[in-house]
Amino acid sequence: MNRYKSLSIDFQIWARSHQSSFEELLKNILPQSGVAPQRLHSAMRYSVLDGGKRVRPLLAFAAGELARADITRVNIVATAVELIHAYSLVHDDMPCMDNDVLRRGKPTCHVEYDEATALLVGDSLQSLAFQLLAENKLSDDAGHQLDMIRLLATASGSRGMAGGQAIDLASVGSQLSLPELEFMHIHKTGALIRAAVLLGARCGGVLTGSELAALDHYGKCIGLAFQVMDDILDSEADTITLGKTAGKDAEQDKPTYVTLRGLQAARKMAAEFHDEALDTLKIFGESALRLNEMADFILFRKY
Amino acid sequence: MNRYKSLSIDFQIWARSHQSSFEELLKNILPQSGVAPQRLHSAMRYSVLDGGKRVRPLLAFAAGELARADITRVNIVATAVELIHAYSLVHDDMPCMDNDVLRRGKPTCHVEYDEATALLVGDSLQSLAFQLLAENKLSDDAGHQLDMIRLLATASGSRGMAGGQAIDLASVGSQLSLPELEFMHIHKTGALIRAAVLLGARCGGVLTGSELAALDHYGKCIGLAFQVMDDILDSEADTITLGKTAGKDAEQDKPTYVTLRGLQAARKMAAEFHDEALDTLKIFGESALRLNEMADFILFRKY
Repeated sequence: MNRYKSLSIDFQIWARSHQSSFEELLKNILPQSGVAPQRLHSAMRYSVLDGGKRVRPLLAFAAGELARADITRVNIVATAVELIHAYSLVHDDMPCMDNDVLRRGKPTCHVEYDEATALLVGDSLQSLAFQLLAENKLSDDAGHQLDMIRLLATASGSRGMAGGQAIDLASVGSQLSLPELEFMHIHKTGALIRAAVLLGARCGGVLTGSELAALDHYGKCIGLAFQVMDDILDSEADTITLGKTAGKDAEQDKPTYVTLRGLQAARKMAAEFHDEALDTLKIFGESALRLNEMADFILFRKY
Repeated sequence: MNRYKSLSIDFQIWARSHQSSFEELLKNILPQSGVAPQRLHSAMRYSVLDGGKRVRPLLAFAAGELARADITRVNIVATAVELIHAYSLVHDDMPCMDNDVLRRGKPTCHVEYDEATALLVGDSLQSLAFQLLAENKLSDDAGHQLDMIRLLATASGSRGMAGGQAIDLASVGSQLSLPELEFMHIHKTGALIRAAVLLGARCGGVLTGSELAALDHYGKCIGLAFQVMDDILDSEADTITLGKTAGKDAEQDKPTYVTLRGLQAARKMAAEFHDEALDTLKIFGESALRLNEMADFILFRKY
C-alpha cells in the first residue's frame, strides 16, 4: 500500500461531522457551569470541551456503523469512553504524576484551576461516565448493558488503564524490554481504545464471538500503532503542533519505541500494527470501511 | 429515651460478625498483591483493608435485612460503597486536599507509598466499585440493577460526594451559614450514606415508593447525625482514639457544627437528627431493628 496516501475527502467529512456533533453533545451532557458546585463543573467543562482529536469516540462511531447501531446509543458510549480518557489526562498532568502545564494547547486543569479541583474533576468525570452508561438505554437487553459497563470498568481500572499508568510510573529511568514496553501500552492506552471499539459495536446487532475477537484484535493493533506514533511525534514534532509539551519522554528518561528501537524501526512497527489491524477487519468486508479509515487516520496523524 | 443507654449485646455481636466477615470478603475481592501491577495492588489493599468502622457496609447489611435481601447480593453493594468511600479518603488525604498523614491509625496512602500511587489507588478503587456492581447479579431484574449502578454513580459524582468535597474546599476560611453547612454535608458524607442504605434495601424484595422515600429520609438524617458527631469528636477526642489527626477542623479554620453553634447545641442537633431517623423507620415495624440500632451506633460512637 502507499504509505503516503492521504485520507479520503469522504472520511474527512465523516470525521469532522462526527467531531462537531460530538462536541455539541458533550456541551449538553456535562453539568452546566451555573449549577453548584460551579467551580468544579466549570473545571470539568474546561477539561473535556474544545479539545483533542476525539480518536476514541470516532472509533466507537466507526464500530457502531459496522454493527448498524443506533447513533443515540453510540453517542453515550462514545461520551463515557471520552470522559474516562479526559479524567486520566487531568490526573496524569498533575504535579505528582507527569507535572505538565500544557494540554490541547491550553493550560492544564490544575494550572488553570488548582490541584484539588483537578483531583475532583478527574474523580467526577469517572463517576459521570458510569452514570451515563447506567441511565441511558444502550441495548434491548439490560443484561447485555450490564456487561458493557463491566467492560468499561475493567478497561479503566487497575488491570486496565490505571494499571498501565502505574507500570509507566515504575518504568521511568529504568530499561524496559520491548515486550515490557508493549505490555505497558496495551494497558495504558490500549485498554480504553479497545473498549471504545467494542462498546461502539455492542450498541448494535449481536456479533458472533469471532467477530468480537476480531474487533478486539483490531483495537489492540491500532492501540499499539497509536502509541508508537505518539512516541514518534513526541520525538519529532514541536510543542505548538502537538498542543502539549514535546520532547517530554526524553527529558523524563521514559522508555519509548523510539528510544528503544530508533526512529526508522519505530515507523516500521507502526506500519506493521496498522497492516495487521486492516487484515483483521477483512472478515467484515465493506461494513468495516470506517474502521479501516480510522487505522489510516491513526497512522497518518501529525499531532 | 435514655441518651446514655449502651448498644445491646445482640447488636454488638451482629455488627462485629458482619465487620469480620466483610473484612474477609474484601481480602478476596481486592486484587492480590502478587498480581501486576504489584505496587498499585498492594497500595489498594493497604488503603482498604484492616481499617474503619465500616459504617456504610453495616448500613447496607441492616437495610438488606429489612428487605430480606440475599446476603451475597448485599455483600457486593456493601463492598462497592466502601470502595468509593475508601477512594475518597485516599484522595482527600493527599497534600493538595487535606494533606493528612494519619488515617485509621496508619500512615496515609501517599505517605506509605507515594502521591502518584495514591492518585491511581483512588482512581482504581472507583473503577472496581462499578465493575463489581456490573459483573455480579444484584437483582432478578437487570434493568433494576442498572438503576442501582446509576444510584451509586450519582451519589459519588459532582452532584454527590465529590461535589460536596468541592464545596468543602471552597468553604475553608469562609463563614458558612448553617443551611450552607448542611448542604455541604448532605453531599459530602450524606450522599454515600444514603446510597448504602438504599442499595442494601434494593438487593431485596421490591419496596414501595413511600418505603424507599422513608429509607432515603432515614439515610439523610443519620448522615447529618454522623457528620455532627464527626465535628464533635474532632473537637473533643485525641488523635490516638480517632486514628486520624484530631483538631484538624479548627486548625484549618473549617466551619463545623461545633464552631458554628457550640458544643451543646451540636450535641442537641445530633440527637434530633437521630430521633427523626427513628421516627421515619416506624412504618417498617420490627423489620427495621438493625437500622434503628445503626442510628444509635452512629450517635453513641466514640471515634
